[in-house]
Amino acid sequence: MIKGKQSVVFDKPVYIEAVASIVGEKEGQGPYGKYFDIVSNDPMMNTNTWEEAESKLQELAVDKLFDKSGIGKDDVRYMFGGDLLGQLIATSFGLKKYEIPLFGLYGACSTFGEGLSLAAMCVSGGYAESVIALASSHFASAEKQFRFPLEYGNQRPMASTWTVTGCGAAMVTERKTDVRISGITTGTIVDYGVKDSMNMGACMAPAAAALIAANLADMDVDESYYDKIITGDLGTVGQKILIDLLREKGYEITNRHMDCGIEIFDGESQNTMAGGSGCGCSATMFCGSLIDRIRSGEWNRILFVPTGALLSTVSYNEGKSVPGIAHGVVIERGV
Amino acid sequence: MIKGKQSVVFDKPVYIEAVASIVGEKEGQGPYGKYFDIVSNDPMMNTNTWEEAESKLQELAVDKLFDKSGIGKDDVRYMFGGDLLGQLIATSFGLKKYEIPLFGLYGACSTFGEGLSLAAMCVSGGYAESVIALASSHFASAEKQFRFPLEYGNQRPMASTWTVTGCGAAMVTERKTDVRISGITTGTIVDYGVKDSMNMGACMAPAAAALIAANLADMDVDESYYDKIITGDLGTVGQKILIDLLREKGYEITNRHMDCGIEIFDGESQNTMAGGSGCGCSATMFCGSLIDRIRSGEWNRILFVPTGALLSTVSYNEGKSVPGIAHGVVIERGV
Repeated sequence: MIKGKQSVVFDKPVYIEAVASIVGEKEGQGPYGKYFDIVSNDPMMNTNTWEEAESKLQELAVDKLFDKSGIGKDDVRYMFGGDLLGQLIATSFGLKKYEIPLFGLYGACSTFGEGLSLAAMCVSGGYAESVIALASSHFASAEKQFRFPLEYGNQRPMASTWTVTGCGAAMVTERKTDVRISGITTGTIVDYGVKDSMNMGACMAPAAAALIAANLADMDVDESYYDKIITGDLGTVGQKILIDLLREKGYEITNRHMDCGIEIFDGESQNTMAGGSGCGCSATMFCGSLIDRIRSGEWNRILFVPTGALLSTVSYNEGKSVPGIAHGVVIERGV
Repeated sequence: MIKGKQSVVFDKPVYIEAVASIVGEKEGQGPYGKYFDIVSNDPMMNTNTWEEAESKLQELAVDKLFDKSGIGKDDVRYMFGGDLLGQLIATSFGLKKYEIPLFGLYGACSTFGEGLSLAAMCVSGGYAESVIALASSHFASAEKQFRFPLEYGNQRPMASTWTVTGCGAAMVTERKTDVRISGITTGTIVDYGVKDSMNMGACMAPAAAALIAANLADMDVDESYYDKIITGDLGTVGQKILIDLLREKGYEITNRHMDCGIEIFDGESQNTMAGGSGCGCSATMFCGSLIDRIRSGEWNRILFVPTGALLSTVSYNEGKSVPGIAHGVVIERGV
């Protein structure tokens, strides 16, 4: 069950019963727009603040997940959720109405990987039949939290990423379905000393590279074991660093790497610089599209690696570096 | 194993191998001062910022825990940690040097309960032999984060609490010791609509009452099952509300209730208003004193209930209420 230094392979299988995704207008106009369950053209989500809007994304994703899974709130034993805002307020106000035991998580943009990992451990460990893992982000609440209020109209450097407005939620169960979580690799904090909060791809790529190398070592396989290795939100700048770092470690992932941040927008026509980012990026891409490509048989086994940059306005204004973390989840087709 | 709606009783026992605690000068001068492993009289912890000082608290607590447990960093499989600061920067910068797989948690001041719960699930589930659960807070970083910079010298209302400067860390293992975690009860978000961020006891008491009632119902026992029921940081105002709420539910806990926030300071001589608070309050009290009173046989079974108030400056400045959450851990003497 324990594999190597950082990984677990589940003896008792864990499955994904259903997923739900909701995104904003810009994500809806992107190349994956048609795959999301809900596309909202109102960035305020009919609420009064950006933070309430993000809470509403969580609420609508969970409601949709109940519908799609046929599992109601009384049959969900735990929720593992988080967002990017200080003190997780999007999650607190988004999930409170459900009255389901909650484990609040913070892994920056890696939170959906952290949530899926703990959800799978929980179900495989016999602590629950069904649990929900979810993560959200919102472009406007994140800009306000981490950078500048939108009203400032600040310019964005080319290495910057565009926070995805969206929430992805997964119902993780012990009931057999056609997609299972077969293993996890839990990340450590990796700090290469990068201090540019506008270049989060560079901050996170070393953590992604370390996680992928740890997974391959723990599983005693090479990169060809996976049909795809899919990172969260490295963007175009981070992708190049990731590939180079893994090449130094003897792995060549160029042909099997995909990054949710690069995929979710059409960078050229949508002006999203290096790509999409935020907890919601990997969560909505996984729930909106990736899982279907496993179900359909296009891929049989993927390593899904949401990536997070560990910073706050306080930490970078105080001159600290931006360390990264990544959490890996092995998703396989069939029982 | 699953008990009732919100609880787990561990079939495979989980133990606490060792604990470590570090606090600041004021906590050191309080009634429990002599029980903490380290008392630092430098609030800056020889660093340049309050946030770095809080990270240092975590680092010193973990180093002390390695010493006391005899378990080194290579034998710790996971850390479950968190703090009160936006994006958990105290934890990110405090724990990065250990290179141990990290699950970042946010449960406000209930984080140590959340961490112990997940740590116990992880060890009992067979995912690890040894893991660390920890939580920290720092008076000055918390005031800056949630209220006013210290330099403002603002007045504090009588219902306010004083954030504890400290970190408590526990080594949770499968190896038999004289103290075990026998069960957990995981909290839901409870919101009575209280909007006064200076009265966190009132915000959290309903969540604590709901958690304790859920635990007693799930375990099918009454309040006399526990030698003590110990909440995190309700303070004197929250304690009264808790006792009243539980009385309405048919439980009388007056004689067996203790609150870490009330205990850690001498309110009258230390000018701490309603009591201590913060993640570090319940974490240091547990690691500094409570566990020893179980080891010594003074208590055989306690319900330990760290309590959290789910707010941020953004949420309360936008007029939101302050919901609460609490996570319960059943600690017993002997194997």
